Amino acid sequence: MSEVYAARRTRLREYCNAGGSAAALVSRPANVRYLAGAAPHGAVLLLGKTEDILVCGPSADRPSQERPDEALRVQTLPGAAGGDPAVAAADLAQGQGADSLAVEEHHLTVARHRALGSVAPRLRLAGLGGAVEQLRVVKDEEEISCMRIGAEIADQALGELLESILVGRTERHLALELERRLVDHGADGPAFPTSVATGPNAGRPGHRPTDRRVEEGDFLSVCLGATYRGYRCEIGRTFVIGTAPADWQIELYDLVFAAQRAGRESLVPGAACRDVDRAARQVLDSAGYTEGLTALTGHGVGLEIDEDPQLSPAAMGKLDACVPVTVEPGVHLPGRGGVRIDDTLVVRPEADGGPELLTITTKELLAL
Amino acid sequence: MSEVYAARRTRLREYCNAGGSAAALVSRPANVRYLAGAAPHGAVLLLGKTEDILVCGPSADRPSQERPDEALRVQTLPGAAGGDPAVAAADLAQGQGADSLAVEEHHLTVARHRALGSVAPRLRLAGLGGAVEQLRVVKDEEEISCMRIGAEIADQALGELLESILVGRTERHLALELERRLVDHGADGPAFPTSVATGPNAGRPGHRPTDRRVEEGDFLSVCLGATYRGYRCEIGRTFVIGTAPADWQIELYDLVFAAQRAGRESLVPGAACRDVDRAARQVLDSAGYTEGLTALTGHGVGLEIDEDPQLSPAAMGKLDACVPVTVEPGVHLPGRGGVRIDDTLVVRPEADGGPELLTITTKELLAL
Repeated sequence: MSEVYAARRTRLREYCNAGGSAAALVSRPANVRYLAGAAPHGAVLLLGKTEDILVCGPSADRPSQERPDEALRVQTLPGAAGGDPAVAAADLAQGQGADSLAVEEHHLTVARHRALGSVAPRLRLAGLGGAVEQLRVVKDEEEISCMRIGAEIADQALGELLESILVGRTERHLALELERRLVDHGADGPAFPTSVATGPNAGRPGHRPTDRRVEEGDFLSVCLGATYRGYRCEIGRTFVIGTAPADWQIELYDLVFAAQRAGRESLVPGAACRDVDRAARQVLDSAGYTEGLTALTGHGVGLEIDEDPQLSPAAMGKLDACVPVTVEPGVHLPGRGGVRIDDTLVVRPEADGGPELLTITTKELLAL
Repeated sequence: MSEVYAARRTRLREYCNAGGSAAALVSRPANVRYLAGAAPHGAVLLLGKTEDILVCGPSADRPSQERPDEALRVQTLPGAAGGDPAVAAADLAQGQGADSLAVEEHHLTVARHRALGSVAPRLRLAGLGGAVEQLRVVKDEEEISCMRIGAEIADQALGELLESILVGRTERHLALELERRLVDHGADGPAFPTSVATGPNAGRPGHRPTDRRVEEGDFLSVCLGATYRGYRCEIGRTFVIGTAPADWQIELYDLVFAAQRAGRESLVPGAACRDVDRAARQVLDSAGYTEGLTALTGHGVGLEIDEDPQLSPAAMGKLDACVPVTVEPGVHLPGRGGVRIDDTLVVRPEADGGPELLTITTKELLAL
């Protein structure tokens, strides 16, 4: 694995050098993880002029399955001193003779940035922008295979829930049970707080579980994901509780399903992100659901649950092969509930069979 | 409740006005929650020259038990536009005729700060420092009562775990079971990721649960907490698995217990934070455990799990009455394990009975 991290750091170094910085300071945890193999709590990565160093705080605890790249020097700040690894890294960069340090201005706070400037006054602080985030967009097959396993785990957890009795149980208990099942099946943990929404809550994006109990006739929408070796995935499904869905439920479900399918089918290398969004959105739009739609119909996913690219009306850029994204349109009718259908897929060329669906739980409307 | 939030905002306004700023922008979520009664995802609070406004993003989901102060105007940004509530708030501040806006430089990133400056060029951006964090240090009885309930919930969850069979179960499963029990007993959720550490892991501060199984003869250390109405608490205990602890286990336990008691007993209004730290630390120091001690032996707790004050050798400042803190010394022997004992207490004058212990689970060394 070490060559993978070294190659990623080389790409970033080339980018920085082209921008006139001999050194870069990476502080955003997912970016540190991507370049160093592990992101102990609070650690930063110095891409130095003469040497790369992972600078860790005194209580640099990390998930047990993460190991820093062995080719990397690891420096741990002494316990009693406290101190900010980013500040220590700036000092090291200056000591290596760099005159400019590119930093993540979208992650460093104003106060930390100022502390960097104070400790290393001879260093010009430049902006690294979202360079590491951009490197992270296209995944290698090793990364995708972690996401595939995570998706299998989420599918399993969801499948088991559907076999249990649901009526009378609260949203919060169902969410906790799903999270326990994720871990039972080998996940590092949930990829994000599991959302279970019943009745009038169903279909609300990002709904946080409440003490409402599942009732006959409810829509039930569930959104969950597993983290596996740091990589995340996301699946959302909506069900009906009881023997048979009502007509309005079938209609709404079919509509959201059609929108989600349109989004999925437009996932081809070279497609504009906004066109994927439009494909899904216009199905809902043309049925009169223009209000209350979410700003995104999908987004990239990987070491974080919400990455570039964004699938939205204002999104710039095109999709590449090997970019995992979610497609997750939905409709929520205030007071009545709604439907959300969410998959994680990997963009693949048509010659390779088109988009690879990672989350394979059925999207038929099940009555439970 | 509305008067409470209004009074808090008034105190902050007076502080800002004294510093020469007519307006303040509060962006750190726990600070928004403290002043506005709720912190919907991404929301910021403008303490304006003419009016206070809670500015929310389009997907401003919030825990169902939080309600924004009704005396506060709430402005929600339109969905499709996306946009940063902090930037919108700066625009509103300038529109109200403020010439200076105090912002949380320890929370705003460099990039967001720059965006604020661009949208409101006539506004001088000043620093609010940790003013809200300082207001939050001393709790009112309403806040303490939420913490007391949270501590009861954590005690219950821990007590139930101790009655179950532990040998053979993994750290991760025990941690998940504790978190489920917290929610069963009415917590909003865990106050922080539950730590369960067995055998050689026991006593490691901030240990993340692994797949290691509990074995006879292990030390087992557990650290958990409940969030109740937004307020957090923390309890840590160490047990021995099997019929009787070994001599070295009893010795180490007694030592850490003595250190923790010394820390607790020094919690009086007016005590210097560093003296509380020293009281606990010197018990371990004088027994020869100088290496590997954590930077803190305790910290404030409230809307966040780790607040001011810090109990550390370099800490400035004194304790006031009605300040909840943890006291949590520990020793970890690499390869063998260790002991950590952690309580949440409220500083009270001696006339009121001295420090109020919120987490009441026994600190006898139990063999389970």
